[in-house]
Amino acid sequence: MLEKAVNEFAKLPGIGSKTAMRLVLHLLRQDMPAVEAFGQSVITLKREVKYCSVCHNISDTETCGICADMRRDHSTVCVVENIQDVMAIENTQQYKGVYHVLGGVISPMDGVGPSDLQIQSLVGRVAGGGIKEVILALSPTMEGDTTNFYIYRKLEDSGVRMTVIARGVAQNDELQYTDEVTLGRSIVNRVAFNGQI
Amino acid sequence: MLEKAVNEFAKLPGIGSKTAMRLVLHLLRQDMPAVEAFGQSVITLKREVKYCSVCHNISDTETCGICADMRRDHSTVCVVENIQDVMAIENTQQYKGVYHVLGGVISPMDGVGPSDLQIQSLVGRVAGGGIKEVILALSPTMEGDTTNFYIYRKLEDSGVRMTVIARGVAQNDELQYTDEVTLGRSIVNRVAFNGQI
Repeated sequence: MLEKAVNEFAKLPGIGSKTAMRLVLHLLRQDMPAVEAFGQSVITLKREVKYCSVCHNISDTETCGICADMRRDHSTVCVVENIQDVMAIENTQQYKGVYHVLGGVISPMDGVGPSDLQIQSLVGRVAGGGIKEVILALSPTMEGDTTNFYIYRKLEDSGVRMTVIARGVAQNDELQYTDEVTLGRSIVNRVAFNGQI
Repeated sequence: MLEKAVNEFAKLPGIGSKTAMRLVLHLLRQDMPAVEAFGQSVITLKREVKYCSVCHNISDTETCGICADMRRDHSTVCVVENIQDVMAIENTQQYKGVYHVLGGVISPMDGVGPSDLQIQSLVGRVAGGGIKEVILALSPTMEGDTTNFYIYRKLEDSGVRMTVIARGVAQNDELQYTDEVTLGRSIVNRVAFNGQI
């Protein structure tokens, strides 16, 4: 019974069997209502969670708070891999458009093809009109690039403006330790400098 | 709803809000039976867990597997702080006696007094007869030492032999970085050497 709970925790990403044991024994020291609250919180979430019918972000309602917010720019759609990426971009407070959550990236190795992702619904959104720019904000990996290219081919005839987030040296990175591809790209894609970043 | 689940995970020791979010979103990607199995595993464990009536180790039965094992030496009792310590000592395969799980150590700072621990039941076990040696295997901390001393005073008139686990330099530790107390103790408590450790 202890083993069963530990095994369940050890299935979580980044949780080894020792940490799993520590977490389970911690829970065992809590009172019954606290343990119930913990266990039920994920079951309830999984059972009742909804996804926004427009952007596929997680949502408590049919349309998520971002898509329902009329002060945001609905003509700009930022394409991201997952919910965490929406949160990360929201945290920058630099983006006032809306999102489109793909639910992953194309990865033949992991058996993820275009039909497993919310790409067709993105094409539909663009075809529906009102969208001027699609920002591709996928991870700068081979899978991300493959997905970017696939979306590009699907949307290139739609007339929508397509952009990709800037790639370059990260804040506080040391230049000498930056990889060649990134450094090379940061020089090619240099931007005008007016005395302040 | 997402926040609720994340908050529940963030209550676990060593799990910050970012990790909690990652774990919850991982679970959200699993199917319903998997999430049910995860959530129910801890609830079931908490609801149905038993503790050994002899040594207070976690157990599926009235008496735990160690206490019920007649091939073990029931005249030697190793006093430990918690269940993890039993597992750690069992993993060494160096101990064939039985255990007594205190459920903590005396720690006035945390409001833990002797009556919160399984000390009276240890005194009772010793008074019950049949026990020749009590090994004190608590952590070498101030709280552990306080608890060791408290147990010593409670048992000194019982005639039972009391020992404490050896303290000294740890395997693979570098001597120059070992603290003075440990190094000093390792010299005072040196043991006869016959050519092999």
